[in-house]
Amino acid sequence: MQTVQIASLGQGSFASPIHQIGAVEAPFKSDSEDRILYANSLKGLHSPDEAMTFEEAGPRENLFFDPAKTTVGIVTCGGLCPGLNDIIRGIVNQCHRQYGITRVYGFRYGYEGLVQRYGHTPLILRPESVSQIHTFGGTILGSSRGQQPVAEMVDTLEDMNIDILFVIGGDGTLRGASALVEEISRRGLKKAVVGIPKTIDNDIMYLDKCFGFETAFAEAVNAVKCAYTEACGAVNGVGLLKLMGRDSGFIACFAALAGSNVDYVLIPEVPFTLEGTGGLLESLRYRLAKRGQAVIVVAEGAGQDLLQTDGGTDASGNKRYGDIGLFLKDQINAFFKSRRMEVNLKYIDPSYIVRSVPANAQDNVYCSRLAQAAVHAAMAGKTDMLVGRWHGAFIHLPLQMVTCGRRKVDPNSELWHAVLESTGQPARWG
Amino acid sequence: MQTVQIASLGQGSFASPIHQIGAVEAPFKSDSEDRILYANSLKGLHSPDEAMTFEEAGPRENLFFDPAKTTVGIVTCGGLCPGLNDIIRGIVNQCHRQYGITRVYGFRYGYEGLVQRYGHTPLILRPESVSQIHTFGGTILGSSRGQQPVAEMVDTLEDMNIDILFVIGGDGTLRGASALVEEISRRGLKKAVVGIPKTIDNDIMYLDKCFGFETAFAEAVNAVKCAYTEACGAVNGVGLLKLMGRDSGFIACFAALAGSNVDYVLIPEVPFTLEGTGGLLESLRYRLAKRGQAVIVVAEGAGQDLLQTDGGTDASGNKRYGDIGLFLKDQINAFFKSRRMEVNLKYIDPSYIVRSVPANAQDNVYCSRLAQAAVHAAMAGKTDMLVGRWHGAFIHLPLQMVTCGRRKVDPNSELWHAVLESTGQPARWG
Amino acid sequence: MQTVQIASLGQGSFASPIHQIGAVEAPFKSDSEDRILYANSLKGLHSPDEAMTFEEAGPRENLFFDPAKTTVGIVTCGGLCPGLNDIIRGIVNQCHRQYGITRVYGFRYGYEGLVQRYGHTPLILRPESVSQIHTFGGTILGSSRGQQPVAEMVDTLEDMNIDILFVIGGDGTLRGASALVEEISRRGLKKAVVGIPKTIDNDIMYLDKCFGFETAFAEAVNAVKCAYTEACGAVNGVGLLKLMGRDSGFIACFAALAGSNVDYVLIPEVPFTLEGTGGLLESLRYRLAKRGQAVIVVAEGAGQDLLQTDGGTDASGNKRYGDIGLFLKDQINAFFKSRRMEVNLKYIDPSYIVRSVPANAQDNVYCSRLAQAAVHAAMAGKTDMLVGRWHGAFIHLPLQMVTCGRRKVDPNSELWHAVLESTGQPARWG
Amino acid sequence: MQTVQIASLGQGSFASPIHQIGAVEAPFKSDSEDRILYANSLKGLHSPDEAMTFEEAGPRENLFFDPAKTTVGIVTCGGLCPGLNDIIRGIVNQCHRQYGITRVYGFRYGYEGLVQRYGHTPLILRPESVSQIHTFGGTILGSSRGQQPVAEMVDTLEDMNIDILFVIGGDGTLRGASALVEEISRRGLKKAVVGIPKTIDNDIMYLDKCFGFETAFAEAVNAVKCAYTEACGAVNGVGLLKLMGRDSGFIACFAALAGSNVDYVLIPEVPFTLEGTGGLLESLRYRLAKRGQAVIVVAEGAGQDLLQTDGGTDASGNKRYGDIGLFLKDQINAFFKSRRMEVNLKYIDPSYIVRSVPANAQDNVYCSRLAQAAVHAAMAGKTDMLVGRWHGAFIHLPLQMVTCGRRKVDPNSELWHAVLESTGQPARWG
Repeated sequence: MQTVQIASLGQGSFASPIHQIGAVEAPFKSDSEDRILYANSLKGLHSPDEAMTFEEAGPRENLFFDPAKTTVGIVTCGGLCPGLNDIIRGIVNQCHRQYGITRVYGFRYGYEGLVQRYGHTPLILRPESVSQIHTFGGTILGSSRGQQPVAEMVDTLEDMNIDILFVIGGDGTLRGASALVEEISRRGLKKAVVGIPKTIDNDIMYLDKCFGFETAFAEAVNAVKCAYTEACGAVNGVGLLKLMGRDSGFIACFAALAGSNVDYVLIPEVPFTLEGTGGLLESLRYRLAKRGQAVIVVAEGAGQDLLQTDGGTDASGNKRYGDIGLFLKDQINAFFKSRRMEVNLKYIDPSYIVRSVPANAQDNVYCSRLAQAAVHAAMAGKTDMLVGRWHGAFIHLPLQMVTCGRRKVDPNSELWHAVLESTGQPARWG
Repeated sequence: MQTVQIASLGQGSFASPIHQIGAVEAPFKSDSEDRILYANSLKGLHSPDEAMTFEEAGPRENLFFDPAKTTVGIVTCGGLCPGLNDIIRGIVNQCHRQYGITRVYGFRYGYEGLVQRYGHTPLILRPESVSQIHTFGGTILGSSRGQQPVAEMVDTLEDMNIDILFVIGGDGTLRGASALVEEISRRGLKKAVVGIPKTIDNDIMYLDKCFGFETAFAEAVNAVKCAYTEACGAVNGVGLLKLMGRDSGFIACFAALAGSNVDYVLIPEVPFTLEGTGGLLESLRYRLAKRGQAVIVVAEGAGQDLLQTDGGTDASGNKRYGDIGLFLKDQINAFFKSRRMEVNLKYIDPSYIVRSVPANAQDNVYCSRLAQAAVHAAMAGKTDMLVGRWHGAFIHLPLQMVTCGRRKVDPNSELWHAVLESTGQPARWG
Repeated sequence: MQTVQIASLGQGSFASPIHQIGAVEAPFKSDSEDRILYANSLKGLHSPDEAMTFEEAGPRENLFFDPAKTTVGIVTCGGLCPGLNDIIRGIVNQCHRQYGITRVYGFRYGYEGLVQRYGHTPLILRPESVSQIHTFGGTILGSSRGQQPVAEMVDTLEDMNIDILFVIGGDGTLRGASALVEEISRRGLKKAVVGIPKTIDNDIMYLDKCFGFETAFAEAVNAVKCAYTEACGAVNGVGLLKLMGRDSGFIACFAALAGSNVDYVLIPEVPFTLEGTGGLLESLRYRLAKRGQAVIVVAEGAGQDLLQTDGGTDASGNKRYGDIGLFLKDQINAFFKSRRMEVNLKYIDPSYIVRSVPANAQDNVYCSRLAQAAVHAAMAGKTDMLVGRWHGAFIHLPLQMVTCGRRKVDPNSELWHAVLESTGQPARWG
Repeated sequence: MQTVQIASLGQGSFASPIHQIGAVEAPFKSDSEDRILYANSLKGLHSPDEAMTFEEAGPRENLFFDPAKTTVGIVTCGGLCPGLNDIIRGIVNQCHRQYGITRVYGFRYGYEGLVQRYGHTPLILRPESVSQIHTFGGTILGSSRGQQPVAEMVDTLEDMNIDILFVIGGDGTLRGASALVEEISRRGLKKAVVGIPKTIDNDIMYLDKCFGFETAFAEAVNAVKCAYTEACGAVNGVGLLKLMGRDSGFIACFAALAGSNVDYVLIPEVPFTLEGTGGLLESLRYRLAKRGQAVIVVAEGAGQDLLQTDGGTDASGNKRYGDIGLFLKDQINAFFKSRRMEVNLKYIDPSYIVRSVPANAQDNVYCSRLAQAAVHAAMAGKTDMLVGRWHGAFIHLPLQMVTCGRRKVDPNSELWHAVLESTGQPARWG
């Protein structure tokens, strides 16, 4: 373990205008002194000299970029997630109001917007034009999946004199951002690339939570209620709900914990079996006999071993998953039909609803503060990095550190244990 | 045209306890004098002597049933619809608090609950046990589809001394209620059967609106917003939303009118074509070129002629429809693929969410008043009838009058014209 | 009784562009043939020849104004009400999209915006600029109370070549609109003035409902829930909620009916007494002893006879009312203190919250259609009138007919009877 | 600094039934090894041996109480706060389902319920009776303010054989809990008293957040939107909103950050002045001239030095504060009147609405997990302590440590700086 270093474009030589805010001491942070511990327990803290620590986010006293001459670009990539507009708005407001930066461009439709032959004209973003966008879901810039030619994108940054590019997206997008950094560096340019990680699955390493997650699971709770209502409305009613969660089942776990009317939570991290006396189907039969209804929440990435599909990959390079929801629906119906038992299964897939609602108040605040941190970092010349929150403090992380793995639900954690307590489902299947 | 008569069990000989409410004049209604006009325009009103009129609902001065000795049953049938619990609660409160009836039973799981060999024990319903049920969706009684043996059901009514049965359900359910009336009459019994029509599609003839419709289309509007957000979030984004509406497209029309971000509304009443220069696909291509995104709202019963399927019928006897939503999704994707154009279609089917949410304030009030009217009617000895609202007044209708047809969106009406104005879609396809 | 006539600027000589919408029969209405009955019952319908009927709203085949040369103004006056932005948006869309009118101005801050010396520059309104305003409460134009010099306002209409002025406001505002009509006529001008009545109290004569009312009472229901929660949370808890309703208690009645947890509804139409064995205070004492908590909903205009205040009038000319909410709070606290009984009264006044929320889906649709009707009427040359809905049909009404009285809750009506049933409060006080 | 010790009733000698949950390793925690660091930065971490650490919450392998013989009591005290019912429900479920404890009593109306002469019969709480209570605001047990005689309360605990008392309340309540512990100890009894801190102001030391805070500020955001809508709706419109926050302005800060339409946030921690060129009134005049409207959010404890009132204390011993909201309303109106400027101020006090709504999904989850932690702690024999969350981990804290101070908004923190950035208000007044 060791101190986590953040790449920098060079020494800051411009004074931060935040000095001017007045009598309150400007909360400037120092890269060397303001360090946030990775560990929050003594178990995780070995020798203090070897403690892993992160740079704390926040304004720096010296800026690398001259605010009067800085041009900023923003791009949103990948699938929709609540809070994208909040992030865009936060960056625009922070640039204009705190740093006096007046040229902020929004690239359209993800990385496509950085490739001129697509013909997507960038938007000029000003505080007035973004003042209410946080009340809408989605992204005013549009998005797209997949990588684009790095050289063409850096050409655009050069042509438009973009000094700072804020990249909002998931794993693949952030790997693309690293590629941009490499090409920028190869050309000897001084341009910062700062990421704001977006993953509705909440599966970024070293982060308390990803923006949009609070909104997403709250919206998912509404669908859980519907699944429960449907289950109660019929003899042997089963509400089957598929939620997001390709590799990590956080949304499923939190949605289940919030309402406590869920009987089974199936997540990618915990394999399950269908057949046999210890499988899901027999367990469900027993549960129905006992309670009269049941609610199953399944994360999209759960039980992929049962599906035996090879769907290839999508434009973002993500493996295409088989549809575990429809699979379970068919399996459950077939199981009960073969036993001549009536079952009334209602299948709900609210994914596009969950991801496209506006951010709630929690994410409004979180996104505002992430955006503020991102602008502070970029103006100080940080690059090849992203901003996040760890143990309540906003921090800087290198892009590579984050894209090399995913945060998952630990089957030995209290979170999963709380889910088992809440559902009463078996801890071990089969 | 003529005066619409309601069947009656006989002359009322018990005084209504509503006299006792105090100084305010009890708003008793007279079958002969309080008549609501079918026509609301001179066009619909031919000779005044021939005017079709309905009995106005409300308390009657003389009751057929002695409140002290009356036993009441309630049954909910068919698919879920917002407001079911409101109706149940309203009946229970009205029976207990206005008439002093203390024996109110809730039969479980639709008509199954009236057939003893299913073993569903009825619930005893009291004001305290139903005081908060209106804050939940679905029905606390459960429901089921399909008819059950009439003789067995009337046996149960006899065994339990049920004097009044309130039947909440759709077309098939109300036809079942008529069969009960016939058998009751054949046996020479004095039992009232009163319907409260339930159809989320809002397609009951001679009714302003059905309970649950206000909630359902409001909830559908949320899904329209998501479809629009998804459409805006991608290059050539298409949000395709399937809503309820087997034979009548009211939910689709109202959901589209509320938000005005919808480009196409496809309903059962207005056939459309896919192919050709005047078909949906070319129109969509043109719309995408012009606006960059499009939202399509399709009622589940629209375009069935395009599907060439024969899915048989469900347990309620309804024809099984092909899935127009998935069909359109495939057709649109194939069309653009064949033209080598990128299109990003997101398909949303929120049906189980729309129908399982709790009633909103509008339906809370409407259901309370429907329930009050139903109890007044039953206590006066009305039977083989249902309660509804027409031109703002609550009325009585014979069951047969309602189950012999459906209300539909008239393609020459202002409603459909307003939809055309709002969407800008072609008035004629092909 | 007689046929209700609407003032007209003259014979229509331009063909409606609605012909062009395509194959569907344009739903043109005829002033003489499409008439909506005032009566909906035989009781209200005396001789058919004498039946009072209203013009049905909708497009006219011949227009008075040439769409290519028409300039339109919109002004919003008086207090906020949900749906104002929907009306504005609906008018703008209808003008642009159906009639091809491209000059639509929004006057700022009520009638002040029509008086040039205030210096409020009108906004140019286009479909793009109003596309999302219905998602916000209030009015993008701003508002103000009170009348302004009529001559100066008509000068502005002349200077700006405004052909049609849409006036959205309450009683006082509509009387002001009549004054404009008079001055326009005196000057021999051909300008239409069309009102859309705004009153959150829902107290307009000859209208099913006013826009915003559905939203307002639904929002009020949320506050009722809070009052009930507070009442249950303490020994002898009393939730006291003041709602809008200067002269008519519709919001209070509907809010109480929706939730059914209200013990007392006090409205202007039904006087009540505080003291004595039959007064509110003793009744409350008894109710608390029986149930442990109570919720009181009081309309702002209720019990003004108890207050003995003379607060003068506000800028709109409305009599200033004493604060019945605070008065009741003090009286109740004093009553129980004098009897050495603990009471925990929580007073909630959500008025500004209720009136400033965005319109709900019901009002979204209703406002769209009202706006469409208003534009159709104005283009046909109708003036000195307003649009509304009666028994489900959209109609035209002369301004004077509406401003000469108010709709009130009839203490002998089923509505009030339903409230008495729901609350169990005494029908007669004192 | 040093290791924070928790009081214990003695050595645990019963095996936890959580062993039986199955194959997943039970996440037992050790008092000595599972320690959460107070510091999250190197700045806060001096020598590792002197690091202040907290016990981590969670199940213990050995229990002090025999689940088969344990009797549990729950009491809720003080003002309402979202999540109270979630906590009650969580404790009941955890006791029954995880530990097999079947005797759980709910004392009514705060500490009054522990004093027999009040005659409040405790409720027997079972999972079925609490299954849906989290969907309602308030507390099903009722609450009251103020202390009661300690000896009488411990008598009740003895008479009812209560082994564990869960006390949910604020500062005063928790001090009362300490008094109970003292008396229990004096009598040589073995009864655990475990607190769950309730403060809607989020002002508990050593806690990430208090339950209900997420819900409260989200609800406050709705009121901020209304204040903004009202401000925009009139010439020189001012929306003045009073929010909770006696000594700490967290709700005001978060509500302002979420929406970013707030011009001034006034909190207890940052004094402000009204008069003078650098005072609020002149600043407001300037802001109105520039923007046309303004929104002011004031915490109830702000500006108490300006009020010069002495209102004594309430039943909980809290100092009664003067009403800063009404004071500001009057001062602002007087200021502009004296300058003959029109101002349209709308004053909104949503406090009872904010505190009485049901918990949102965030607080649903948080409360469930707090309740689980509280039961684990109590069963292990912990007493005189409370459960909370620190840097993402659930922990134990001694009651005294928490009641001796309050968490406040630090004027030098990033949080307050973010508020200043968002509002643009002066950092220094006067």
